[in-house]
Amino acid sequence: MRKIGKDEIENIALGAAVLGTGGGGDPYVGKLMAQLAVEKYGPVTLLSPEEVDDDAWVVSISGMGAPSVTVEKVPSTNEITGTFEAIQKYAGKDFAAVYPYEVGGLNSLIPIVLGALKGIPVVDVDGMGRAFPEVQMVTFCLDGLQSAPMAMSDDKGNSLILNGIDSVWNERIGRQALDVMGGSVTVCDFMMQGRDLKRAGIHGTLTLAENIGKTIHEVRHVGENPVQALVKKLGGVHLFSGKVTHLERRTTEGVAKGEVKLDGIDQYLGQTARLDFKNEFLIATVGEEVVATTPDLISVLDFETGLPITTEGLRYGNRIAVIGLSCNEKWRTEKGIETVGPRYFGYDLDYRPLKGETGA
Amino acid sequence: MRKIGKDEIENIALGAAVLGTGGGGDPYVGKLMAQLAVEKYGPVTLLSPEEVDDDAWVVSISGMGAPSVTVEKVPSTNEITGTFEAIQKYAGKDFAAVYPYEVGGLNSLIPIVLGALKGIPVVDVDGMGRAFPEVQMVTFCLDGLQSAPMAMSDDKGNSLILNGIDSVWNERIGRQALDVMGGSVTVCDFMMQGRDLKRAGIHGTLTLAENIGKTIHEVRHVGENPVQALVKKLGGVHLFSGKVTHLERRTTEGVAKGEVKLDGIDQYLGQTARLDFKNEFLIATVGEEVVATTPDLISVLDFETGLPITTEGLRYGNRIAVIGLSCNEKWRTEKGIETVGPRYFGYDLDYRPLKGETGA
Repeated sequence: MRKIGKDEIENIALGAAVLGTGGGGDPYVGKLMAQLAVEKYGPVTLLSPEEVDDDAWVVSISGMGAPSVTVEKVPSTNEITGTFEAIQKYAGKDFAAVYPYEVGGLNSLIPIVLGALKGIPVVDVDGMGRAFPEVQMVTFCLDGLQSAPMAMSDDKGNSLILNGIDSVWNERIGRQALDVMGGSVTVCDFMMQGRDLKRAGIHGTLTLAENIGKTIHEVRHVGENPVQALVKKLGGVHLFSGKVTHLERRTTEGVAKGEVKLDGIDQYLGQTARLDFKNEFLIATVGEEVVATTPDLISVLDFETGLPITTEGLRYGNRIAVIGLSCNEKWRTEKGIETVGPRYFGYDLDYRPLKGETGA
Repeated sequence: MRKIGKDEIENIALGAAVLGTGGGGDPYVGKLMAQLAVEKYGPVTLLSPEEVDDDAWVVSISGMGAPSVTVEKVPSTNEITGTFEAIQKYAGKDFAAVYPYEVGGLNSLIPIVLGALKGIPVVDVDGMGRAFPEVQMVTFCLDGLQSAPMAMSDDKGNSLILNGIDSVWNERIGRQALDVMGGSVTVCDFMMQGRDLKRAGIHGTLTLAENIGKTIHEVRHVGENPVQALVKKLGGVHLFSGKVTHLERRTTEGVAKGEVKLDGIDQYLGQTARLDFKNEFLIATVGEEVVATTPDLISVLDFETGLPITTEGLRYGNRIAVIGLSCNEKWRTEKGIETVGPRYFGYDLDYRPLKGETGA
C-alpha cells in the first residue's frame, strides 16, 4: 500500500503512453484531471492485488471510444462518478477498490480520478499490460470472467447497463450504442472479487508505467540517448528509426484504423518500415520482414526526446523510434493469440515473437 | 374485468392490424403465440384502467424494430419473459399488470402472451391508439412521463437497461443498439403507477381493436361490402380505392420507409393517389390534395375482403381501399402534433384534420 500524488501521476501518465502503444487515448488530459483531483481531495491509496481481500468486490473504470474522439472529448468528473454510481446501484455492491481495465493510455488515469473523487483505493493491476481496442481483450476473459454487468454513461447523462451473453457481445452492443452517445463513454465493468482479480489480472502494471515514466525523465536529465537508455532499462528491442513519409487514418465503427510508412534515419538509413494500427500499433514491418506483431507491444517514441507518440499525435515528417516490448505471458497462450493476435485484427499472418527479444 | 381467450385474440389481432395503419408488425404470428399461450395457461384477465389501483405499478411490453425484420423474426417466449424479468429485477417492483405500449399491430398481442405466461392481468389501454415507429411517440410523453428504465432483450439472450435522459434519447440509443441485436428486440418500458396510466393513457383500445376485428368478421359473413360497412361502423372516411402501380420500400436505420402509388378503381376510376409511410402510413394524397396526415389513422384494406394489409404485406397489383380514422384527441394538441405530426417525420406540410371527418 502506498500513496499516489501529483509526481506519481506525472510518471504514470508518461509510462502509460508508452504502454498504450499508440492507443488507449492520450493520457495528457487524464493526467491533468487526476492531478487536480488529488490536489483537491488528497493522494489516492494504491493497493497491490495481494492487499485486496479475496471476498472483496472490485470494479474497473475506463473510457471507451475512438482515441480521435477522446482526445477532444474527455470524460467529465460527473460522467466518471455517475458511471461508478450506476454500477454500484445496479450490482448492489459496496466496492472496496477500483482498478484500470487497461494500463495503456488515458485509461490508467481514470481510476485514479475516481479514487480521489470517491476516496476509494486503486489496485495496481490491469487486464492487458498495455492497451487494446475491444472490451473482451483482457486477460480476465482468458480466465472465463465476464464484463457484464457493464455500465456505460455519456457526457449528457444518458446511461445504460449492458448484460450481453458474453464480453464480445458487450463489445458489439456497447460499441454500436456509443456511436450515438457522442463517440465516447465512460464504462464500469468486469466487477469481480479479490481472488479473481489476483488470479486473472496482470499485476503491478501501474507501478510499471510509473517506472517507465521515471526512466524517460531520468535519461533526459543525464543527457543519454533516451531511446537506447529506455530500451536497455526495459529489456525491449529497438526495431527502427525513421521519418514519417505516409500516414493514413480513418475513424470508423468507433475505432481509428490506419498505417504509417517510414524512411529510415540514423543507423536505419536506406531502409523502409511500415506500422499498421487499429487504435494501437499492431504490426511492425521493416523492409519485407515482420519484426513485431500484436500482442507484443509496439511503441513509437520521439527520436530526439524519447517521449511517446500516439497514433493520433503522429504527424507527417515526424522523426520517430519504434521499440518493441514483450507482452505478458498470458497473451502468448493459444487462447491469448486467438483473442488479440494478428488474425483477430484481420491481418493474414501468424503471431511471431518479437525479433531480437531478450526476454525482459 | 373480463377474460381474453382464443376468440378474443382472433378479433384483437385483426382489429390491431387496422389500427396498425400498415405498421406495428404483422399480428399474425403474435396471434398464434397468444392463442397458444392461453390454450396452455388459460385465459388472460383484461382490466379496464379504472380497475388498476392508483398506487399499483404497471409496465408495458412490446417489440421494437423494423416490421420487415419482425415479420420473419418474432420474439420467442423466452425473450418476452426474459425482458419482463429484467425490468422487474432492475426496478425491484412487483408489477400488478402489463399493458400494450401501442395497440396497433403485433404489439397489441405481446402483453397478452406475457400475461398468459406469467399469470398477470393485461390493462385495456395503450399509449397511441394506433401504431407509431418511435419510443417517445406515446401520449405518456405528452404528459411528462418517461420511458426509462427501458429493458431491451434479443433472441440470443443479450439484454440491457437503458436510462436515457429522456424518451427521445432512449429511442436513439435503443434503435442504434438493436441494429446489432438482430434488428428486433423485446422492450419493457414506461413503468408507471395506476394513477398515471389512467391519466396519460388512451383507454379501451384493446376492446376497440376487438370490436373492429369482430365487425370485419361479421360483415364478411352477411355479404355486405366490408369496406363500406367498416367505415360506417367506425365513423371513418373512405379515402380512395385503387390498384398498386408503384411500391418503394427501404429498410434503413431500423425502420421501413417508402411510398405507394395507386390508380383508382371503382368510384375512383381515372384518379390517382399516393401513400407515404415510415413503418406506418403517414400521408394520403389523392390527386394533388392531401386528404389525411399523421396522427390521424390511414389504413389499407383489401378491396374485396376488407382485411387489413401492412406496408410489408403490400404488393404490386394489389387492389386496396384506403380508409381514414380520427386519431385520439390527445394527439391533436400542439405538443401532440409536434411529436407525431407530418413535420416530425420530415414532410413539408402541416397537419390537417381528416378530409370528410364525421367525428366518430
